[in-house]
Amino acid sequence: MEIKLEQAVQILERTPGVLNQLVSGLPDGWVMTNEGPETWSPYDIVGHLLQGEESDWIPRAKIILEHGEGRAFEPFDRFAQFEKSKGKTLAELLDRFALLRQRSLEELKELRLTDDLLQKRGLHPDLGTVTLGQLIATWTVHDLSHISQMTRVMCKQYGAAVGPWKEYLPVLTR
Amino acid sequence: MEIKLEQAVQILERTPGVLNQLVSGLPDGWVMTNEGPETWSPYDIVGHLLQGEESDWIPRAKIILEHGEGRAFEPFDRFAQFEKSKGKTLAELLDRFALLRQRSLEELKELRLTDDLLQKRGLHPDLGTVTLGQLIATWTVHDLSHISQMTRVMCKQYGAAVGPWKEYLPVLTR
Repeated sequence: MEIKLEQAVQILERTPGVLNQLVSGLPDGWVMTNEGPETWSPYDIVGHLLQGEESDWIPRAKIILEHGEGRAFEPFDRFAQFEKSKGKTLAELLDRFALLRQRSLEELKELRLTDDLLQKRGLHPDLGTVTLGQLIATWTVHDLSHISQMTRVMCKQYGAAVGPWKEYLPVLTR
Repeated sequence: MEIKLEQAVQILERTPGVLNQLVSGLPDGWVMTNEGPETWSPYDIVGHLLQGEESDWIPRAKIILEHGEGRAFEPFDRFAQFEKSKGKTLAELLDRFALLRQRSLEELKELRLTDDLLQKRGLHPDLGTVTLGQLIATWTVHDLSHISQMTRVMCKQYGAAVGPWKEYLPVLTR
């Protein structure tokens, strides 16, 4: 599909609810366990999404609108959540994510992006020229991909418990 | 983790709500599109989960409890949804899945499975000896893996729209 702002928002506005339905209130065995060394637990993933809300998507959209290709984005720290989430419960992270996402979508609406503005170019510090539309599409795919990752991580907690059925569950060896 | 019935149920009871949050009410571009030939759309996946609820999980649990390894399960038709979903809207499939899942969990409760009973053996037509606990763990992983698949399929609808960010999104080439 081509990006249409309305279609992207249909996904972005659902993510807090999806995350809540998936992991809110679950015990640590489901939410604090990862896939092995240097991988992320559902708790880490929520912290990462929160970080994106604070310093990635809307701030970058504004840089494109204000500076075009004249100013590169700040690099995004993919590991900031390990420090920032410290001492916070999953419930706190989920609530804060829901709040910040709501604010992001309000800000997005206020930007009054037209199809023409979605073509406007900005400068990614590593990837080079990107458009505002590509940024919004990436925001959307980023949400969905981390829900996909989170459910895969949860599958792996039962990787041994499924016994011979492992053969039919490619998710367990991905 | 070892399978604990209570932990498995914590996931199984959430799935209808997760699916609703994810795809209920979305336009066809998000829910009727797949990943290419012989792959499944979100709509197909919901139909498949519904089929599992009708003929796989609880029926197989009962066969293990009643017949042990003396009677193999009926083979499960992984493609039955293509015929069975015909003419039904996604909303109808989601509602029916929620209803059948609720019934399945009531039946599961009525089976009063103990840790000892979870060790009871049954016969899978292809995989051979399996236990009731492995069946319940597989049911749980099956739910989560199809949520993971569904969100991956949705990501791919914006595979081109993300432009250069594709490089950072391994989900798009999986």
